Amino acid sequence: MSIPATQTAAVFHEHGGPENVKFEEIAVPEPGQGEVLVNIKYTGVCHTDLHALQGDWPLPAKLPLVGGHEGAGIVVKLGPGVTQLKLGDRVGVKWLNSSCGNCEYCMASQESICPNAKFSGYLVDGSFQHYCVANAAHATKIPESVSLEVAAPIMCAGITVYRALKEAGVHPGEWVCIPGAGGGLGHLAVQYARAMSMRVVAIDTGVEKEELLKSLGAEVFLDFKKVPDMVEAVKEATNGGAHGTLVLSTSPKSYEQAAGWARPGSTMVTVSMPAGAKLGADIFWLTVKMLKVCGSHVGNRLDSCEAVEYVARGQVKPVYKVWPFSTLPDVYHAMHENKIAGRIVLDLSK
Amino acid sequence: MSIPATQTAAVFHEHGGPENVKFEEIAVPEPGQGEVLVNIKYTGVCHTDLHALQGDWPLPAKLPLVGGHEGAGIVVKLGPGVTQLKLGDRVGVKWLNSSCGNCEYCMASQESICPNAKFSGYLVDGSFQHYCVANAAHATKIPESVSLEVAAPIMCAGITVYRALKEAGVHPGEWVCIPGAGGGLGHLAVQYARAMSMRVVAIDTGVEKEELLKSLGAEVFLDFKKVPDMVEAVKEATNGGAHGTLVLSTSPKSYEQAAGWARPGSTMVTVSMPAGAKLGADIFWLTVKMLKVCGSHVGNRLDSCEAVEYVARGQVKPVYKVWPFSTLPDVYHAMHENKIAGRIVLDLSK
Amino acid sequence: MSIPATQTAAVFHEHGGPENVKFEEIAVPEPGQGEVLVNIKYTGVCHTDLHALQGDWPLPAKLPLVGGHEGAGIVVKLGPGVTQLKLGDRVGVKWLNSSCGNCEYCMASQESICPNAKFSGYLVDGSFQHYCVANAAHATKIPESVSLEVAAPIMCAGITVYRALKEAGVHPGEWVCIPGAGGGLGHLAVQYARAMSMRVVAIDTGVEKEELLKSLGAEVFLDFKKVPDMVEAVKEATNGGAHGTLVLSTSPKSYEQAAGWARPGSTMVTVSMPAGAKLGADIFWLTVKMLKVCGSHVGNRLDSCEAVEYVARGQVKPVYKVWPFSTLPDVYHAMHENKIAGRIVLDLSK
Amino acid sequence: MSIPATQTAAVFHEHGGPENVKFEEIAVPEPGQGEVLVNIKYTGVCHTDLHALQGDWPLPAKLPLVGGHEGAGIVVKLGPGVTQLKLGDRVGVKWLNSSCGNCEYCMASQESICPNAKFSGYLVDGSFQHYCVANAAHATKIPESVSLEVAAPIMCAGITVYRALKEAGVHPGEWVCIPGAGGGLGHLAVQYARAMSMRVVAIDTGVEKEELLKSLGAEVFLDFKKVPDMVEAVKEATNGGAHGTLVLSTSPKSYEQAAGWARPGSTMVTVSMPAGAKLGADIFWLTVKMLKVCGSHVGNRLDSCEAVEYVARGQVKPVYKVWPFSTLPDVYHAMHENKIAGRIVLDLSK
Repeated sequence: MSIPATQTAAVFHEHGGPENVKFEEIAVPEPGQGEVLVNIKYTGVCHTDLHALQGDWPLPAKLPLVGGHEGAGIVVKLGPGVTQLKLGDRVGVKWLNSSCGNCEYCMASQESICPNAKFSGYLVDGSFQHYCVANAAHATKIPESVSLEVAAPIMCAGITVYRALKEAGVHPGEWVCIPGAGGGLGHLAVQYARAMSMRVVAIDTGVEKEELLKSLGAEVFLDFKKVPDMVEAVKEATNGGAHGTLVLSTSPKSYEQAAGWARPGSTMVTVSMPAGAKLGADIFWLTVKMLKVCGSHVGNRLDSCEAVEYVARGQVKPVYKVWPFSTLPDVYHAMHENKIAGRIVLDLSK
Repeated sequence: MSIPATQTAAVFHEHGGPENVKFEEIAVPEPGQGEVLVNIKYTGVCHTDLHALQGDWPLPAKLPLVGGHEGAGIVVKLGPGVTQLKLGDRVGVKWLNSSCGNCEYCMASQESICPNAKFSGYLVDGSFQHYCVANAAHATKIPESVSLEVAAPIMCAGITVYRALKEAGVHPGEWVCIPGAGGGLGHLAVQYARAMSMRVVAIDTGVEKEELLKSLGAEVFLDFKKVPDMVEAVKEATNGGAHGTLVLSTSPKSYEQAAGWARPGSTMVTVSMPAGAKLGADIFWLTVKMLKVCGSHVGNRLDSCEAVEYVARGQVKPVYKVWPFSTLPDVYHAMHENKIAGRIVLDLSK
Repeated sequence: MSIPATQTAAVFHEHGGPENVKFEEIAVPEPGQGEVLVNIKYTGVCHTDLHALQGDWPLPAKLPLVGGHEGAGIVVKLGPGVTQLKLGDRVGVKWLNSSCGNCEYCMASQESICPNAKFSGYLVDGSFQHYCVANAAHATKIPESVSLEVAAPIMCAGITVYRALKEAGVHPGEWVCIPGAGGGLGHLAVQYARAMSMRVVAIDTGVEKEELLKSLGAEVFLDFKKVPDMVEAVKEATNGGAHGTLVLSTSPKSYEQAAGWARPGSTMVTVSMPAGAKLGADIFWLTVKMLKVCGSHVGNRLDSCEAVEYVARGQVKPVYKVWPFSTLPDVYHAMHENKIAGRIVLDLSK
Repeated sequence: MSIPATQTAAVFHEHGGPENVKFEEIAVPEPGQGEVLVNIKYTGVCHTDLHALQGDWPLPAKLPLVGGHEGAGIVVKLGPGVTQLKLGDRVGVKWLNSSCGNCEYCMASQESICPNAKFSGYLVDGSFQHYCVANAAHATKIPESVSLEVAAPIMCAGITVYRALKEAGVHPGEWVCIPGAGGGLGHLAVQYARAMSMRVVAIDTGVEKEELLKSLGAEVFLDFKKVPDMVEAVKEATNGGAHGTLVLSTSPKSYEQAAGWARPGSTMVTVSMPAGAKLGADIFWLTVKMLKVCGSHVGNRLDSCEAVEYVARGQVKPVYKVWPFSTLPDVYHAMHENKIAGRIVLDLSK
C-alpha cells in the first residue's frame, strides 16, 4: 500500500465555533512503538467532538487538534513491536486511543480510568483525517461481516452505551429506563438492552421517534412533551420503578426525576456530560431508597469487542446518514443547534 | 415477669423543638402476630431522632410519637406465632423495626428498602419508653458477652456504618476515607473499617479527636481546620486517592471534595441525610473518573447480627456516655447545637 | 369452600419400587402457624420422587411418605398468622416447602441451604394428594395468565434450571452447553437460557429431540451417539469452549468431558444427583483452567417468582403430557426404565 | 552493568530424578520485544519444579529446561519497547512469565488462563540461572523495603495463596479452613488470611507446626494425626462449617472431607495438583449444600503486586531457609521425600 506524505485533515487551532475548523494539508503521522497507522474510511461525529471544539470541559484538549473518535479503516503500517495486528486488518479507532497498560487500573481491565489514558480527537489527533495513529492494543478488530460505515458509530456511541448498560446491573427480564432514547446513543442503547434481555422504557418525544424506538424493541414509549407526571408513568409501566436508568438526556431535571422512578436499590448511570452540570439528586431519597449513581464514559477493550459482536450477530444496527467529510463544519453547526437526528457518519473519500 | 399496664414514655404530639417532648404515662403496648414486647434497659439517641422531632424530612413521621431506635433490652412477652425468640432473650430494637418479609426486596435480603418497612421511633413507637414492641424477625439477639448499654448504639450507628462500609467495596489493604470520623457514627466506622482490614484516613478536627481516632486505628488523621487542600492531602496520603469514601459529614461541600479525592472507579457512600440537601457532585468528573455514589441508610438482619459479633469479638467498642432517661430533652438540645461528642446512651432506669 | 375430612393420597410406607405406592384414604391435614392448605389440581413428577421412593440418597426421607413437589392448586384454608395469601389464591407447592426464616442462610436469601429446610414430598408430605400443606412464605403465587397444569412442572424443574443458569454466570451473548438438554429439566433450561440471551449448545440424541430443541432456540445440537469427539465439537461450536455448562446428564463421564469443553475460567453447574456418584473431574485441568464446579439443587423464593414470570411473559413453555393421578405408579415405573420423554403432569381430578 | 556471555544454569535434558539436573555453562539469553534480562539473586524452589523435572503432568514441559519460577533479581538489560521498567529495578520472576496481552482473557485481567501464557521454568527457561528473561509487563516490581530473598517465595507461593484466598470468597470475620497449613504455601496462606481479616482453622500435624501457625495468627489448630473426626472438629470450631476452604493438602481424602466441613454455600479452592488425581467429591452433597469447587493456580499481575505489598507492610513474612544454588539437586531430593519444612530459597551467588 502506498502511503502519501501529506493528507487533508480537519484541524482547529483554537477553541470556538464550527468556523474554527479548517481543512488543512498536514503530514501523515508515523506510528510509534506498539502503534499502527489506520487509513480512515468512515468516521462518526459525536457530541464530545463539539465539546472538544468549544473547549467547555474542565479537561484541556490538545491544540491544534484533529478531532474524531469513531473512526473505522484499514491498517496500512505497523509501528515497532506490533504483533496483534497485521497490514490490511479492518479496525476501529475509539475514544480510548491508548492507556499505559501497566497501572493498577490497566492491570484490572479498567483502562478507561488509566491516569495516562489518551483520548482520540481530544488528547491525541483523531479520525477527522485520512491517516490516523492508533494504539494496536486498543484498535478494535472489525469482523468482515460488519461494514466500516456501520462500525464507525459503534466505536464511541455503541461501546459507551453497552458498557453503561452493564454498569446499570439490570438482569434479564428487568426494566431499564432510557431518557433520551431517540438520539445517537439512545437508539443503540435500546437495541443493546433488548439483546441483553432487558425490557425497555424509552423516553423521548414525537411520533417518529416513538415508531423508531418501538421497532427497535422498546416495550414502552413515553413522550416527555405529553406525559404529565413522568415519575408516576415510569413507575406504573415498570410495576414499581425501573431496575436501572441510563441517563442520556442532558436536561438538568433528569437526575431528580430518575431518582423518583428508580426502583429502590437500583442504579442510575450517568453518560452525558453537559458542561458544568451538577448531579442535583436529593440526598434523602438517594439514601433511603439505597440508590446508586454510577458514572460511565466508555468501555474497556473487551467491551469494545463485544459491542461489535452484537452488530456482527445482527442484533444491533446503528441508524445513521452518510455525509461527505467536507461537511464536517455543517455537522458541528447542526449539532450545536440540536438539529441532528440519529448519527452522522462521514465518508472520508468525499 | 410482671408487666405493668402503664409506663412512662417520652412523647411528642407535634413537631418542633425539645420543649415539645413530654414524659407521659401511656399504656404498655401489646405485641401482635410475630412481635415481642421488649423491656428497654438502654437506648442510644441518634441524629435521626432530632429529624423526627423537627419533622424536616420529606417522609412524614407518625404523630404522636415515641422516638428512639437504638434500644437494648429483655424480651418479656411473645406475640402469637413467635418461635425465634423466647422470654428473657436479650435483644436490640433497631431503626428497621419490621418489613413485610414477602416482597421482592425482602425475598432478596434487601428488607431495608421494603415498601412496607416500619422504622422504629418514626413510623412506629420506638425505644424512648420502658416497654417497646419489636418484630421478632428483626429484633437482633445480643450475646451474653455484650452488655446492653454497649449494644444500644450498635443498633443504629453501628449497623449503619458497617453496611455502608460493605457498600463502599473497599478491599483489605485498601484505603477508606471518612470525613466526619470523630462523631457517633464515625468513631464506629473507623473501628469496623480496621476490623475489615481497610486502611483509614479520618477527617475531623481537634487534638482530642485526633488522639481518639488514631487510638482506634486510623492510620492518617487530617484536620479540616488545618489542612489547606484536603483533596490533595487525601490523594497524597492514599497514594492516588481513596478506594472508598464514607460521607458522614453533613457539610454541603463534602461531595464535591470527595469526588476530588476519590480514586478513579471508587464508591462514595452517602449516609448522612441533611434536610433538603442535594448531592452537588460534578457530573463531568463523576463520569470521567467512573465514580459511584451509593446511598445507604441501614443494614439488613444479617448485617445487624454481624455488626454485633464484631463487638462480641472485642474488635469494636462504642465510645459513649450514659445519661439518665430524664435528660432526653437536654440531649435533643445539645444535638441541635452540635455539642454532642460521641454517643449518648440513656439509662431507662433513671 | 367445603373441605372434606379425608382424601385419597399416594402413600408409601417403605422404600422400594412402584408397587410400594398405594392410594390410601388419609386425613386432610391442618395448616399450622404460617401455613396454608392447598387444594392440589395438578402435580408434576420428578426424578427426585423416584429417589425418595427408592431411598437411595444419603438424606433419609420421612416414612410413610406422600411424595410430590411440583404441585399447583388453590389456597383453601389459612393457618394462623398468614397475611401474604388469601383464600382462592392460585399457588405452587415447590421442593423447598419451608425454611426457618431466621438463620444466617435465610437472612441472606439462601433459604435452600437452611439447615431446617423442609423438602416437599421428602421431609414433609407433598403434592401427590388432593390437599397439601404449604408454608405461606414459600408458596409461589401463580398469575392468572398461567394455567395450573403449566405451572406444575415449573415448581421444581423450572426453578431448578433457572437458578442453575444464574449460577453458571453466563452473560448475554455467551455460550452455555447443556448435556441432557432433551429431558424434563433440559428443555426448560434451553428456553430459560434463550430468554436470558445466552447462546445454547444442546447435547442429546435423536432427530426428534434435535427438532424440539432447535425449535426452542438451541443454536447448535450435538448428538452424543453421532459426534465422535464431543469435547472438540463443543469447543469448535463455541469458538473456544462453553462459557458455562449445565450438567443435566447423569452419565458419569459428563464431568470429565465438561471440564474438557469448558472455557477457561468458566463454571460447570451440577444439578443431577445420581445416587452415590463422585465428581471425577481431573484436578490438574480444573486448577490450570481455573474452572469452577457449582452445586445447585433449587432456587430461593425470588427465583421461583421470576421463573414463573418468564412463563407468564410467554418466553418459557413446558412440554408435558397430562396423565390421570391414578397412573402415578406407571410413571414411576417408566421413569425407572428411563422411558419418560418430557414431563408428566398428573391431573388430580382423575 | 557488565553482562557476561555465558553463565551457569541448572538444566535437565530429560525428565527423571534429581540426578538429571546438571549445572551447565549456557549462553546468557537476549531479551526480546517487551522483555527484560533479570540478574537473579535468589530463587525459591516449588513443588511444581519437581513436577516439571519428573514430567508427570499432562502439560508437556520444554526440554531441555532451566527450571525455577520464584526468582528475584535486578533488571540489567531492556529489550526493545520496554518502558515500564528501567535498568536497576528490583523485580520478581513469577510462574506466569508472559501472556499474549490481547486475548479475551488478557483483556479481562485473567491472563493466567491466556491460551498463550508462558510459565517460567516450564514452558520457558526460569530462575535456576543467573540471567533470566522476563516479560516486562509481568515482572513484579519489588519495593525497596522488601529484601530479594524474602520476595522470592512470594513470586509463586505467595501470589498463589493470596489469589486462592480471594477466590474462596471468605469475608472479614468469617472462617477459612486450611488443610496443609504448615507447608510452604500454607504458612503464607495463614498470614494472608489474617491480614484479610479472616479467622483461620489450620490443619496439619505436630507441635512445631502448631506453634508456628498459632504464632502466625491461626485461631484454631487441628492435628490430623490426633483429631478423630476432622469434619466434626472443623464444624464445631467454626460454629457450623468453614466459610471457605483452601485445599493445600495433596491427600486424596481432602476433598471428601472438605465437602463435609464446608459451610453450605461455601467455596473450596483447589491449589495443589497431585499428578493424576481426580476430585472425588460426592455430587449429592455438593449439590444439596450448594457448594462450589474452584480451581486456582496463580494470580494476575495486580494480585502479584498486592501480594508483595502485604509483605512490604509487614503483614506477611515468609519462613524460609537460604541454601546455596549448588544444593538444588538436594532440594529436589528432599522434596521428593517430603522432607522440606517451610520454603527453601537458593542464593545464586553460592
